Amino acid sequence: MNYKMIGYLLGQIIRVLGLLMLLPVIVGIIYHEPASIWAFLGMAAALVIMGTLMTLKKPEKKDIYTRDGMATVAATWILVSVLGAVPFTLAGAIPNFADAVFETASGFTTTGATILNDIESVDNACLFWRSFSHFLGGMGVLILILAILPQSDTRTMHLVRAESPGPTAGKLTAKMSSSVRALYGIYIGLTVLEMILLLFSNFSPVPEHRMNFFEALNTALSTAGTGGFALKNASIAAYDSVYIDVIVTLFMLLFSVNFTLYYLILTKKFAQAFKNEELRFFLSIVAVSAVAIAFDIMKIYGGFFKALRYSSFQVLTMISTAGFATADFTEWPFFSQMILLLLMFVGGCAGSTGGGLKVMRILLLCKTAFREIKCVLNPRAVVSVKCDGKAVDKEIVRSVSFYFVLFMLLAAVSMLLLSLDGHDVGTTVTAVITCLNNVGPGLSEISPSGNFAGFSSWAKILLSLDMLLGRLEIYPLLVLFTIRKK
Amino acid sequence: MNYKMIGYLLGQIIRVLGLLMLLPVIVGIIYHEPASIWAFLGMAAALVIMGTLMTLKKPEKKDIYTRDGMATVAATWILVSVLGAVPFTLAGAIPNFADAVFETASGFTTTGATILNDIESVDNACLFWRSFSHFLGGMGVLILILAILPQSDTRTMHLVRAESPGPTAGKLTAKMSSSVRALYGIYIGLTVLEMILLLFSNFSPVPEHRMNFFEALNTALSTAGTGGFALKNASIAAYDSVYIDVIVTLFMLLFSVNFTLYYLILTKKFAQAFKNEELRFFLSIVAVSAVAIAFDIMKIYGGFFKALRYSSFQVLTMISTAGFATADFTEWPFFSQMILLLLMFVGGCAGSTGGGLKVMRILLLCKTAFREIKCVLNPRAVVSVKCDGKAVDKEIVRSVSFYFVLFMLLAAVSMLLLSLDGHDVGTTVTAVITCLNNVGPGLSEISPSGNFAGFSSWAKILLSLDMLLGRLEIYPLLVLFTIRKK
Repeated sequence: MNYKMIGYLLGQIIRVLGLLMLLPVIVGIIYHEPASIWAFLGMAAALVIMGTLMTLKKPEKKDIYTRDGMATVAATWILVSVLGAVPFTLAGAIPNFADAVFETASGFTTTGATILNDIESVDNACLFWRSFSHFLGGMGVLILILAILPQSDTRTMHLVRAESPGPTAGKLTAKMSSSVRALYGIYIGLTVLEMILLLFSNFSPVPEHRMNFFEALNTALSTAGTGGFALKNASIAAYDSVYIDVIVTLFMLLFSVNFTLYYLILTKKFAQAFKNEELRFFLSIVAVSAVAIAFDIMKIYGGFFKALRYSSFQVLTMISTAGFATADFTEWPFFSQMILLLLMFVGGCAGSTGGGLKVMRILLLCKTAFREIKCVLNPRAVVSVKCDGKAVDKEIVRSVSFYFVLFMLLAAVSMLLLSLDGHDVGTTVTAVITCLNNVGPGLSEISPSGNFAGFSSWAKILLSLDMLLGRLEIYPLLVLFTIRKK
Repeated sequence: MNYKMIGYLLGQIIRVLGLLMLLPVIVGIIYHEPASIWAFLGMAAALVIMGTLMTLKKPEKKDIYTRDGMATVAATWILVSVLGAVPFTLAGAIPNFADAVFETASGFTTTGATILNDIESVDNACLFWRSFSHFLGGMGVLILILAILPQSDTRTMHLVRAESPGPTAGKLTAKMSSSVRALYGIYIGLTVLEMILLLFSNFSPVPEHRMNFFEALNTALSTAGTGGFALKNASIAAYDSVYIDVIVTLFMLLFSVNFTLYYLILTKKFAQAFKNEELRFFLSIVAVSAVAIAFDIMKIYGGFFKALRYSSFQVLTMISTAGFATADFTEWPFFSQMILLLLMFVGGCAGSTGGGLKVMRILLLCKTAFREIKCVLNPRAVVSVKCDGKAVDKEIVRSVSFYFVLFMLLAAVSMLLLSLDGHDVGTTVTAVITCLNNVGPGLSEISPSGNFAGFSSWAKILLSLDMLLGRLEIYPLLVLFTIRKK
């Protein structure tokens, strides 16, 4: 392991984190919030100094290999979750530091699970930092996608495993700078567009239905990362506006789609974009689930179309793993709840900011299962798993199945440990599922009208780890736990 | 497909089922139960006539291939579940036929889930038929093991896939008759031994602690198939006897062990038997779980050893998938409940009458997960999955992972469908888990003190299918649903 280079890279990241903390300082100044101003300013200064000291001496050997790269990624996310939590405690918004770490990990991993009982009592600088962490987390995931998954297909595991000598940090930036710029352009562009569209809610005659600038900004940042932190205790339900519901639903959909498809659309290759099998599978799941749930909850809302408004929002908030709420789905019939629970596992498309197992993996798992059945029933037939018309590399099919096994084993171990905290089975099971898939809400105590405040400190750290494991797709964190000196 | 040969084989099975129904007739005569006598006698006559008619003409072409074999197996289990249910309804013990099918499928698949609200009001002939179906189910599984898994290792899928021309039914019997005899000898021997040991409970000074001959017989038959049907509403808890608890616990353990190990023990190859990695993994899981739960429930039972008595019984009833009860574990702390829920998936060893995914599969899944982690972290290392000191065939590792994927997809679809029946999430989720793994009890409505009576008829049929899919390890039933004419 090239520890010097890893330290240097972490130093750079710490300095950037420090600089980013100046944004909540500005928010604090605008809204006259002295406690938060000093908390964020102090931490920003500390981080910039610390980061600068760590990057004073550029290491001579710059080569980093897969293991170093993964260790850097994992250390970055853990550092950011811990260091990013300090201002919450300094400002007094979240006095318990374990709580603050949970909230920040939930932010950066774009989970959106909260321990705050009263979100509306928190000051704007802290609220902005929460939503902004979603936006940064989503951005970080996009970098990861680029670093690990250049063609944005399913070769993740494959490429990670091929330990070519490099890519060095320098080469990586050089080679990818243009794609990074295009990707960030799309990401920021969509976020700004959502904010502007949300501001149109101010044309509504009903004051309750309007979103002010700060609310629109934060909601857009949260949606972009498919995070789910909201500014109101009742989440998006607080506005009770059809217009806002529709806009947020639409953008949750847009941020769950593979970002490379936007390239295709920008370059007017519409046919190619819409032929994408993952996209069509994703849209089919969304459509079928939304209609099925709408029929199931029709009686509650007194009409199919009103039901469809709530069901489509809820379906997208679950499958995109944003976790916003316009209704408490735990009061819906169990068929609807079961669909939503299963959607948590699906998540967004590969190459989006959505969490979960990713639509592509689910698609491949289903195809693998059908292929396996065909093989057992017709042993002489040679059946390969196809996607987008091409046969998928056997190694990928294998690694997707193994990833699923690993994911379920991890879920089982987490549930077992979490059950020591003494919550009911529904809470325990769905807390692990919602955190590993970076969704946010679950059933029982952690329903959309509840929160994670009831867990003890160690349970919050465990769930924070689950969020990080889910976000980084397990492997990078494991590198950290298995570092050996060579 | 060789439909004539399949029909002939099914005819033989129907005739045997008819003859076996004479046993409950004898029980009915002993206990003077006219309704049951006529029900079982009538059905026995009908089945013998039907079976004889079907086997009058021996087909000329006797070759059956893998697909035919699997179709025969699947059709047998479905037929037996449906035809075996008729006497329950004829005798009036279970008036609703869907209920009777559920109860019979639960019997033959050795699940032990019941729809009976008051078991003690059912007459002895019907009770005997319930327990006896567990014993027959366990026997059937042993035949399957022999037919599919000759060396009783993990090559199941592999062998099934290799569509060699044959084995014909004739050859199969000839080649395996000696092993079948040895296996049945062990199975029947262990059952008789348990019954005799249970009868020793009559030396107890407390009348409540004693089991009469009929109870001991039925309990032994239920344990042998790791089924779980009991004669008392309170299951084994009704006797409240340490002695009976210990005997049943011990035999649940014995019937969950790979039966080929008993060969080794009979031929005095003790070292080889105890070196078996699956066995050691199984015993470790049992020991760790029992001790962990005992610590967790110590406060309830006022002492570690009393707690250990209940925890070890419950651990074995779950992992062996018998599903007897000496305590309502849904009243235990959630940590204990979570362990028990996870044990349901583990099940017995390969080559035992236990259900679940099988210890061997779990062992291979864990090893696969660790291998995968090692590969990602050290891409240059060539790591193979080893078991019993030998490298496991890649094809087996692959098929175990794919089986797990298929199993979880099936569970997800079943839960989704079952949620339409409107039970709470705990009931819905654990009903599917307990039926697919052939365990018996679950949480909430189907806790050890509840039962499956609350489900609607179609839900009972769905759960019956799940039991069959779990018992036959999915593939054979799929053949039936995908029959094509060639």
